[in-house]
Amino acid sequence: MEQNKQIIFKGYIDGTPKETDMELKLGEIEVKAPKGSKSVLVKNLYLSCDPYMRGRMRENYGSYIHPFVPGSVIEGFGVCKVVESDDPFYKIGDLVVGLTGWEEYSFVRKNEQLRKIEHGHDDVPLSYHVGLLGMPGFTAYAGFYEACAPKKGDCVFVSAASGAVGQLVGQLARLHGCYVVEPLVLVRRCFPQGIDIYFDNVGGAMLDAALLNMKVHGRIAVCGMVSQQSISNRDGIHNLFTLISKRIKMQGFLQSDYLHLFPQFLEHVLREYKQGNIVYIEDLNEGLESAPAALVGLFSGKNVGKQVVCIAKD
Amino acid sequence: MEQNKQIIFKGYIDGTPKETDMELKLGEIEVKAPKGSKSVLVKNLYLSCDPYMRGRMRENYGSYIHPFVPGSVIEGFGVCKVVESDDPFYKIGDLVVGLTGWEEYSFVRKNEQLRKIEHGHDDVPLSYHVGLLGMPGFTAYAGFYEACAPKKGDCVFVSAASGAVGQLVGQLARLHGCYVVEPLVLVRRCFPQGIDIYFDNVGGAMLDAALLNMKVHGRIAVCGMVSQQSISNRDGIHNLFTLISKRIKMQGFLQSDYLHLFPQFLEHVLREYKQGNIVYIEDLNEGLESAPAALVGLFSGKNVGKQVVCIAKD
Repeated sequence: MEQNKQIIFKGYIDGTPKETDMELKLGEIEVKAPKGSKSVLVKNLYLSCDPYMRGRMRENYGSYIHPFVPGSVIEGFGVCKVVESDDPFYKIGDLVVGLTGWEEYSFVRKNEQLRKIEHGHDDVPLSYHVGLLGMPGFTAYAGFYEACAPKKGDCVFVSAASGAVGQLVGQLARLHGCYVVEPLVLVRRCFPQGIDIYFDNVGGAMLDAALLNMKVHGRIAVCGMVSQQSISNRDGIHNLFTLISKRIKMQGFLQSDYLHLFPQFLEHVLREYKQGNIVYIEDLNEGLESAPAALVGLFSGKNVGKQVVCIAKD
Repeated sequence: MEQNKQIIFKGYIDGTPKETDMELKLGEIEVKAPKGSKSVLVKNLYLSCDPYMRGRMRENYGSYIHPFVPGSVIEGFGVCKVVESDDPFYKIGDLVVGLTGWEEYSFVRKNEQLRKIEHGHDDVPLSYHVGLLGMPGFTAYAGFYEACAPKKGDCVFVSAASGAVGQLVGQLARLHGCYVVEPLVLVRRCFPQGIDIYFDNVGGAMLDAALLNMKVHGRIAVCGMVSQQSISNRDGIHNLFTLISKRIKMQGFLQSDYLHLFPQFLEHVLREYKQGNIVYIEDLNEGLESAPAALVGLFSGKNVGKQVVCIAKD
C-alpha cells in the first residue's frame, strides 16, 4: 500500500466555492491494476482548475456531467503517468490526459476523453495538455470555428480574454484575419460599427452589454457563464430584443459535441504554436494542498491565464 | 378635393398603447397622381394591426424601421386599390398590398414591399394579403423553415399560437410531420422529453419557461417579444445557461431578410390553403374609426386570430 493524498469534496454548496468546501485527506492505495479490470493506475502530474467544476458542486445540476459525490475525491482533467496497467493499450510510463482524481494516484479507464500523449508533442510543456492542447483550447477552437462562423475582417469581442479559453480565441481570431478587442469598455471606441462575433465566457451583465453593441447578423457563441456559476438567483438578461432587430444568432455549445475535430485542432494549434504564432499563459500552483485555493481563485478572477496545479513533475 | 379621414399618431409614448395616443382627423386629398411623380394614389381597403407597430411609437427605436412621425398619419400594411397612377406598372383598378397610411386614400410608391395582387389569387379573401399571404404569414414561413431547421417528428411549441404568425407556424409544422403543442402549461405533459423547436412570439416569462424545457440541440426562433413591447424596463431572462448545457441555438430573424423566398412561400401556402390543409382565423373590425381600438387590443390579447380593419370593401 502507498500513501495517497486526496482532495475530498465535502458537500453541495450554494454561492461561491470556498477552500473549506474541500479538505485534504490522507488515504492509501494499492499500486496494482487488478487483473481483468482493464483499469490503469496513474500518477497524477498536473491538475486542471476549470470553471465548469462549480456546476458539479450543485446537487441538482441536471446538466451534461454528473455532480461530485460528497465525501469523495474531486474529479477533473489532468495529465498523468501510467504506473500500472491491465489494459494493453496503455504501457507503464505512458503519459495520458483525461478525467482523473485530485489525488496523487488514481485508477482510470479507457474512454473517449482519455487520450495518450503522442511523442511528437514532447516539446510542449506537459501542462499544456490540460490547457492549450486540452479541453479549454479545444473549446476555443470548436467554439470559434464552428459556432461563430468567422470571416476575415470580422470584429471579435472575447470576454474573460485572459482565461484558459479566451486567450486562445483572441489569437485564433487574429490569425484568421479578424479584429479583436477585449475589454468591453473599449468596444464603442474600437468598434464604432459594433461587434460581429462575441465569444461569451461570462454571461450576466457583460452579455447584456454586448447585446447592445452587436452588428446586424452578429453571432454570439455561448461558451460559459462564469459570472453566473455561483449565483442561485441569476442575473436577468434584458436586451434579448436585439436578437430580432439585429438578426443575431446565439449558439450554446459544448466542446464534447465536436470531438471528431480534435485531431485537426491539435494539428492546427501545435503548428501555430511551434511557429511562434500562439503563446499560452498559465497560472501554475505547486502542490496538491494548493489545489482548493487555485480552484476558488477562478471565481474571484485571481488567476491570470490557465489555472493549473502541479502535484508532481514526473 | 376629396374628404380623407385619417388616424393621426399624437406623440411618442411609454407603456402600453392607448386609443387616446391616436386621433381621427378629417383631411382632404386631391385625387390625382402628379405627372412625373411616379406615385400612385390608392384607396385603402384593409389595414393590418401588427405588434411591431408598438416599436414605432417609441422615439429612439433604433431598430429596423423608423419611428412614426408625431402629428402624421399612422403607417402600416394594407390592401389597397389603385385609383390614380403615374407609374405605368400600376393601372387603375389594380389591387396592391404593402405599406400604406391609416386613412381612406394614400399616395404610395413602387418599392420591394409593395406588391400587385395577381389575378390567380382572387379566390382568397382580400384581407388575407396582409395576413396569411402577407407579412405575418411570410414571417411564419421564413422563421419556421429557415430559422428552426425543422425535421419530421420534432416537438414544436409556438407561443401566441392563435396570433397572426403563430397560427400558421403550428399548421406548417404539422404538415411537415412535427408534433405541435401550444399552451406551455401542457408542455411537460405533452412533451415529457422536451421541445425541439420553440417559435417565440412573446419573449419574457414564456421564453424563460421554455428555455427550461428545451431538448439537447433545440432551436429557438426569436420572432417577436409582444409581451415586452410596451415595457421600458424589460423582464430579465434568467435561464440562458441552458443554451450551453443543451447546446441550443437562438436565432433572431426578420422576414424582410428572406424576401427572395416570397414567391415560393406564396405558392406553398396557397396550394395548402386551396387543398383545405390550412385555415386562417381573422379578427375583423369595421371602419377606420375602430382601428385605434383594434391596434390597442393586440397588447391586451383581445384579438383571436389576425387583427384586420376593413375600411372599404372595394
